[in-house]
Amino acid sequence: MLVWRGRILSDRVVLGFSGGLDTSVAVLWLKEEYGLDVITVTVDVGQNEDLRAVERRSRELGAIRHYNIDAKDEFVRGYVHKAIKANALYEGEYPLGTALARPLIAKKLVDIAHKEGAIAVSHGCTGKGNDQVRFEVTIKALDPTLRIIAPMREWNLTRDKEVEYAMKRGFYFEASKSQFSVDQNIWGRSIEGGILEDPSKEPPEEAFEWTVAATNAPNEPGYMTLTFEGGVPVRVNGEELQPVELITFVNRFAGQHGVGRIDHIEDRLVGIKSREVYEYPAALTIIEAHRDLEKMVLTRHQLFFKRRVEEEWAWLVYSGLWVDPLREDLDAFIDSTQRYVEGEVTIKLYKGSYRVVSRKSRYSLYSHDLATYTKDSTFQQSSATGFIELWGLPSRLAYRNKPFQAEKVEAARRRV
Amino acid sequence: MLVWRGRILSDRVVLGFSGGLDTSVAVLWLKEEYGLDVITVTVDVGQNEDLRAVERRSRELGAIRHYNIDAKDEFVRGYVHKAIKANALYEGEYPLGTALARPLIAKKLVDIAHKEGAIAVSHGCTGKGNDQVRFEVTIKALDPTLRIIAPMREWNLTRDKEVEYAMKRGFYFEASKSQFSVDQNIWGRSIEGGILEDPSKEPPEEAFEWTVAATNAPNEPGYMTLTFEGGVPVRVNGEELQPVELITFVNRFAGQHGVGRIDHIEDRLVGIKSREVYEYPAALTIIEAHRDLEKMVLTRHQLFFKRRVEEEWAWLVYSGLWVDPLREDLDAFIDSTQRYVEGEVTIKLYKGSYRVVSRKSRYSLYSHDLATYTKDSTFQQSSATGFIELWGLPSRLAYRNKPFQAEKVEAARRRV
Amino acid sequence: MLVWRGRILSDRVVLGFSGGLDTSVAVLWLKEEYGLDVITVTVDVGQNEDLRAVERRSRELGAIRHYNIDAKDEFVRGYVHKAIKANALYEGEYPLGTALARPLIAKKLVDIAHKEGAIAVSHGCTGKGNDQVRFEVTIKALDPTLRIIAPMREWNLTRDKEVEYAMKRGFYFEASKSQFSVDQNIWGRSIEGGILEDPSKEPPEEAFEWTVAATNAPNEPGYMTLTFEGGVPVRVNGEELQPVELITFVNRFAGQHGVGRIDHIEDRLVGIKSREVYEYPAALTIIEAHRDLEKMVLTRHQLFFKRRVEEEWAWLVYSGLWVDPLREDLDAFIDSTQRYVEGEVTIKLYKGSYRVVSRKSRYSLYSHDLATYTKDSTFQQSSATGFIELWGLPSRLAYRNKPFQAEKVEAARRRV
Amino acid sequence: MLVWRGRILSDRVVLGFSGGLDTSVAVLWLKEEYGLDVITVTVDVGQNEDLRAVERRSRELGAIRHYNIDAKDEFVRGYVHKAIKANALYEGEYPLGTALARPLIAKKLVDIAHKEGAIAVSHGCTGKGNDQVRFEVTIKALDPTLRIIAPMREWNLTRDKEVEYAMKRGFYFEASKSQFSVDQNIWGRSIEGGILEDPSKEPPEEAFEWTVAATNAPNEPGYMTLTFEGGVPVRVNGEELQPVELITFVNRFAGQHGVGRIDHIEDRLVGIKSREVYEYPAALTIIEAHRDLEKMVLTRHQLFFKRRVEEEWAWLVYSGLWVDPLREDLDAFIDSTQRYVEGEVTIKLYKGSYRVVSRKSRYSLYSHDLATYTKDSTFQQSSATGFIELWGLPSRLAYRNKPFQAEKVEAARRRV
Repeated sequence: MLVWRGRILSDRVVLGFSGGLDTSVAVLWLKEEYGLDVITVTVDVGQNEDLRAVERRSRELGAIRHYNIDAKDEFVRGYVHKAIKANALYEGEYPLGTALARPLIAKKLVDIAHKEGAIAVSHGCTGKGNDQVRFEVTIKALDPTLRIIAPMREWNLTRDKEVEYAMKRGFYFEASKSQFSVDQNIWGRSIEGGILEDPSKEPPEEAFEWTVAATNAPNEPGYMTLTFEGGVPVRVNGEELQPVELITFVNRFAGQHGVGRIDHIEDRLVGIKSREVYEYPAALTIIEAHRDLEKMVLTRHQLFFKRRVEEEWAWLVYSGLWVDPLREDLDAFIDSTQRYVEGEVTIKLYKGSYRVVSRKSRYSLYSHDLATYTKDSTFQQSSATGFIELWGLPSRLAYRNKPFQAEKVEAARRRV
Repeated sequence: MLVWRGRILSDRVVLGFSGGLDTSVAVLWLKEEYGLDVITVTVDVGQNEDLRAVERRSRELGAIRHYNIDAKDEFVRGYVHKAIKANALYEGEYPLGTALARPLIAKKLVDIAHKEGAIAVSHGCTGKGNDQVRFEVTIKALDPTLRIIAPMREWNLTRDKEVEYAMKRGFYFEASKSQFSVDQNIWGRSIEGGILEDPSKEPPEEAFEWTVAATNAPNEPGYMTLTFEGGVPVRVNGEELQPVELITFVNRFAGQHGVGRIDHIEDRLVGIKSREVYEYPAALTIIEAHRDLEKMVLTRHQLFFKRRVEEEWAWLVYSGLWVDPLREDLDAFIDSTQRYVEGEVTIKLYKGSYRVVSRKSRYSLYSHDLATYTKDSTFQQSSATGFIELWGLPSRLAYRNKPFQAEKVEAARRRV
Repeated sequence: MLVWRGRILSDRVVLGFSGGLDTSVAVLWLKEEYGLDVITVTVDVGQNEDLRAVERRSRELGAIRHYNIDAKDEFVRGYVHKAIKANALYEGEYPLGTALARPLIAKKLVDIAHKEGAIAVSHGCTGKGNDQVRFEVTIKALDPTLRIIAPMREWNLTRDKEVEYAMKRGFYFEASKSQFSVDQNIWGRSIEGGILEDPSKEPPEEAFEWTVAATNAPNEPGYMTLTFEGGVPVRVNGEELQPVELITFVNRFAGQHGVGRIDHIEDRLVGIKSREVYEYPAALTIIEAHRDLEKMVLTRHQLFFKRRVEEEWAWLVYSGLWVDPLREDLDAFIDSTQRYVEGEVTIKLYKGSYRVVSRKSRYSLYSHDLATYTKDSTFQQSSATGFIELWGLPSRLAYRNKPFQAEKVEAARRRV
Repeated sequence: MLVWRGRILSDRVVLGFSGGLDTSVAVLWLKEEYGLDVITVTVDVGQNEDLRAVERRSRELGAIRHYNIDAKDEFVRGYVHKAIKANALYEGEYPLGTALARPLIAKKLVDIAHKEGAIAVSHGCTGKGNDQVRFEVTIKALDPTLRIIAPMREWNLTRDKEVEYAMKRGFYFEASKSQFSVDQNIWGRSIEGGILEDPSKEPPEEAFEWTVAATNAPNEPGYMTLTFEGGVPVRVNGEELQPVELITFVNRFAGQHGVGRIDHIEDRLVGIKSREVYEYPAALTIIEAHRDLEKMVLTRHQLFFKRRVEEEWAWLVYSGLWVDPLREDLDAFIDSTQRYVEGEVTIKLYKGSYRVVSRKSRYSLYSHDLATYTKDSTFQQSSATGFIELWGLPSRLAYRNKPFQAEKVEAARRRV
């Protein structure tokens, strides 16, 4: 209970607020059901909303205060760059955009809660997705004393009921024009709902906004050269760009060539399989370039083990465990490998396809002299004989046991 | 020493023979240097050579006998199908065509050696590549008493010297029209040499034969539906095809849409990095479809661990260790998972790009009812609260140690 | 609702029953709170209880029927043997006894539920342990329509309250003589509670029953020779024993030498760390012998990858996911490796210590001739030169980049 | 060719020198066969030789200079401590003593070679072991221009021939009293040769020097408390010791209790299996304590993944790839985890057995309050229901496919 100048104040809740139907209704509901003063927070990670309209909406709904926090730069440097260095693709496909943003947003909500002396934090996630886990694990780690309220999960209303609930309280929401529910930030865009929930149906063109249909892409291939330093892209076609600018530029460029669509079956953390459709033009091309460059500058031992680390990193972040100390340990490994990841990679894009066609690096471990088959090189071919002798020795010795084993299998078969 | 009807016969060597310059010169050289009778063997794994011309060439060069063995069906059923079930891509890119064929060819050479009472087996590989390892490890495992002769490695001549050597003995070889050296079989095509050895140069159009340039591909997207049973494709667009036919068809179809080109830096087993360029239209599309289907029918636990198994399988086969018992153990795992891999997958191909757009299976673990966000489903949202509580517990507890740790880091910093 | 001869019958619940305080109180509670007819089931997996007394107790408490199922042989052949082949030790220490028995007991409960037309299954686990997960995941997989009732979790009474509850209903339970709570079956024994919950205190001698204190063990070392076939022990000191007999014998023999105690910090599936104390004389010695034999008969590639499989197997079974198809896939891998695991291993036991001192196998890949340093062997030492050249090549090439990297690190340091 | 004050000097070779028969003969042979001036170097990593006698021997044999380098502290801090943090046990058994020392010795040899302007480096390893690889990969990485001469491998003499060779040149070596060949340093002791090469024979008591027979160990258990900071032991029984002292003390203490013997079949890098016998009293007990402490302070996610890293580390170092950048990357991961590895662990030792009986840490993640079964705790038991529901969901869904699959298996069986 807060008391201020002799007046009893309501307790406060900090709500992550997008201005959409769900979180708008949540403002009303938190006031009514919990009797809390609501403070709304919009963390700008590049979702491209009209932030003024969001703020206005918040005030109309009766929030006592609204915060708009520009976290785009922090998001790219502290989260997206780590994902690039980790070549992070959950289940080989999903570049983790939403998963990366959640711990950052959670941190901002907790910061505001501390500043405002709030007793609770609230978010608009349902009980069927991954985001509730990402929010709540982070919030509870950062401050175990904060209460978490998840109106959509507790209340579990359909869209129509929500519209009705708001209308009764004098707020009108138009029926959504889109059958899809979208989450986007600077790293990428997820599209869910409607026809996409049938995995046997091709996603319709309307689902996509960041990528043109391949059939409408330019008739000439486009080339894009990325320069990496310390494992992150710092220049495009030779021009130095700030992190946010660079990602934005690549999203636009690759999207224009129809590159960036993803469509796969994904295992949600809560145990459900779902069909997911995404647009990630920058993520797909930058990670492809980054991987290719790594193949040039890392040893095969580094490459082989880094793939283990990458899968673990993607799994951990997808699973809402950004705060687990393992994430920092994995980052320590990854950062150590990225010392050498410096150089230029050129990607060719054409009507939905993309492929690295050129790469160079001062740290290149590729040696033309060793590799070439065509002329005399410094590679000692005679070394191969000894190598083969020892390399295959264990397998060859084991092979001698095959007849014995065949015998036994045979005997076993006869016995049955 | 062989004696026949009182006559001393020369010892025999069985040579893997392609009819090209290297193995042609090897026939002459094995006779001259080693005084052996040469038996040539061409194992047809779909390399699309003029097999009659190859046989003629063998006779002209003085081989005492030539074998032509059609192993296409055995190759697809016993090797390529295993690779499909394993989603086998070495270092995430190379579908292993040559690597898969080597142990089969080696087995055929040993069979002929036994049939002919030969004392040695010979192949045309140099000392800088992977194939020498694959051949020799297999041959030595199958019969440790057979001697192995590798003329190209021992002798190490340039192409010009080889032409000259042959010419002196009355055999004329035209200067090769191509700057590239190619190995191909039904599963794919490797292109090496010339300009491709500069990894900063885009591969020229002449390097490719199985795939059209994306810019020349049809203006309409193509769709292809693959039906899988037991993890292998058995039907294309509803029509049942024999294994060899099916691969051949898909190679042609995908190649026409400009799909199948690969360009990356690869770690050869002998310790060298090389830039590799490939064409694998069927491999890339079939494996993409197979992976997608697996995501629908395997549990997340199966998917996660199978990726480990797949990487190990690809590494083992790439490294010439087909005969190691581990390969059979991995196949036992993989076959067990493939019980459920049955269903239909549709891929859309367009000007070099390809993407799965539809999948269905009677074993699907995707449940629309559970996954949907839009209407009331049987999924108990309240379960999520308990799940999140326990899921994040260890990470949250660990987070409490952060301030202590920060303290120590700070102290350490001050001490320095 | 069951109706029989015109009479409405109560619905039935099948309760896993040990005769202890918890499940005894559960009988009363299920009748009272849920109005169910209770059928008790004791699955004998070697827990060494007085099964007649258990049955009597069930009748006294008012269960309508009691089943006693001897599943010892099924447990060893279908569960423990798989664990031996998998060298299953969760977190490197825990041989999984309880974890292995749960899915078997769950299966029996479901079988009886089907036979009796019951609508629910009940167990005595609390909400803080792993066993509730193992029971419920298995039961729900086997029959999703069965309701599960967990009185201890719902009700959450202390021991004293339980005694009081029972007493009010005319049932007297003596205060337990032991501070410890024990679960045991033929594979091992877990001891929990009391002083053991302080991980800084050495477990007192009273906690142990299967193992003598090392200081009281015989003054002469004991030797035990185990013969393995297909990866499982079939003979002890040359004498063939049935699976149950063999485990029982080894437990007694190793326990007499003070071997089998385990004490470590374990991560429970529900997110809690706990200090666990166990007695597993047979498990520790048999797995040690089995591992040692595998090192003799499996190739290094098999050994290396099997360790991955073993950890996954132990994790999966610990985590209650026996029914996941991955478990069968892992077993397929493991069974494939066990073709060769045949031979004799001798272990020396002495006052709490044990060590393999001898092993032999017809499938041994150890070759004295190759390995010996002392006399001339068939091993070609000259092969080593070529091997070393190629083996170290990638690492050596990478080393050249070190000065550049040092420079950059230096520059970075200066910049800060 | 070196010229000094107008005199032509012989080229120089730097020889790693132990004073034993092999390297003594090597001095003579390098002078005779290669005409080189020999500079001998003994790197003291705690092998406990009479270093003055070694130096005398070098002079007698005609080396032009001898270096004795005390590297014990550098060895423990820079190599052994990393191994402790990595819980490094190759194939689960071998603590890597020799493997750790080789790259350090190689570095010292290269340093002296640079200082002395030598053109070559020489070592006494045979062509059948791992050490040649470890030496040569490191030396070639540090300076690819240095020639490496391996007399034992090139020359391949038996012991008797070596004695004869030396005698002819006036040097007398007694027949070795021991049948065993030993390598030791501060971290441990390897014993090879003689009867040990028969893996079915128990190692005789004479093989051991650092550990008493368990039957001769004290009749009272010993307790030892190790305090760790940053993952390395800094105090024993409360007393702060320098790194070298601490290892020395623990070796003696544990050895007196008969603890530290290892006997297993090991896969050498060169493809051979060998039976290896070791004594590692400090390594086994310190690593056991370290592992136990980690279980208390690291999250289960850290523990699970660190095991992967540990196996990779041990494999890499065993395989002679200390210089590969992956080793530094793995160390970065490991060091990050060790932030929290601080606390006290008590081990009980008795007649060959050892077991952790107590551990505590300020960073402990063990919470008695959460873990206890016996009284009311803060753990929300009701959370478990939701957790179980979601945790088992994928496995349960998959289970539904079992009957279909059984059908197919059945059908397949009938078809055969």
